[in-house]
Amino acid sequence: MTESLDPIRLACWRSYIESSQLLLTQLEDELRGSNELSFADYHVLVLLSEVPGQRLRMGELASRLIFSPSRLTYQISSMQRRGLVSRESCPEDRRGSEAVLTAAGLLALHEAAPHHLRSVRAHLMDDLDDAEVACLTRVFDRLGRKLRDLRDASSAPSKS
Amino acid sequence: MTESLDPIRLACWRSYIESSQLLLTQLEDELRGSNELSFADYHVLVLLSEVPGQRLRMGELASRLIFSPSRLTYQISSMQRRGLVSRESCPEDRRGSEAVLTAAGLLALHEAAPHHLRSVRAHLMDDLDDAEVACLTRVFDRLGRKLRDLRDASSAPSKS
Repeated sequence: MTESLDPIRLACWRSYIESSQLLLTQLEDELRGSNELSFADYHVLVLLSEVPGQRLRMGELASRLIFSPSRLTYQISSMQRRGLVSRESCPEDRRGSEAVLTAAGLLALHEAAPHHLRSVRAHLMDDLDDAEVACLTRVFDRLGRKLRDLRDASSAPSKS
Repeated sequence: MTESLDPIRLACWRSYIESSQLLLTQLEDELRGSNELSFADYHVLVLLSEVPGQRLRMGELASRLIFSPSRLTYQISSMQRRGLVSRESCPEDRRGSEAVLTAAGLLALHEAAPHHLRSVRAHLMDDLDDAEVACLTRVFDRLGRKLRDLRDASSAPSKS
């Protein structure tokens, strides 16, 4: 399957994509083992902990996580059952609803974060020298900007 | 959540992990749109196309994909229904079974690969200069080796 990438770039792509999937699986296994959280649970907790009022509209949360509405509903229902988030109607728009971090959710995040960041350091970050950190930051900032612009452009008509 | 990574490395980590998840979602959306394949389908087709006889034991395939046995069974059953792979008992061990690429599966891969690699180039690889390619290859080769060693060590007693 080399028809459109030279061998050096194809090897780079495969190394990046395979290692990244390995890393995601490993981090998720460790999060589940130490704190009974999936990677998606953890990501939702981090996002909610960092916004004013610890709450986000469902549409905004779906767009930040790049989840379909049905996948987000499933994810938030699962977290609601475990008491990590609650769902409330929006103060300014009664038809909309918001996911709100609970105290139990914040506590779960505070318990999980040191374990998770220790894993992140042990598997990847502590092995990087400063030049590699700068290179990865530059490459993935650029990639993120590009993909967000693409998403925004393709979903421009419907903002919610 | 900065207690154990300095701000520069934390920003690097978040940029990498968020952009990589964005990229996986984008590539999967495009694969589904152009060829009705998931990212996992595509990965299975690539793996099987590259081994002798275009066949792998289920245990070996699970370990290469880092799928649990139940997730692999679900994945292969779904691909069997679509005619992309078949399942056969192993010639040397009648209790084991192998996933075998079908002609339709190889054709599906040949149809999908140019679209997929065009996406990979457009979103990431064409934006990288040679130094960035070298840096990513070095970092992710190292990460992959480390995580495979870890997996091998933790699953050492049971080889199948």
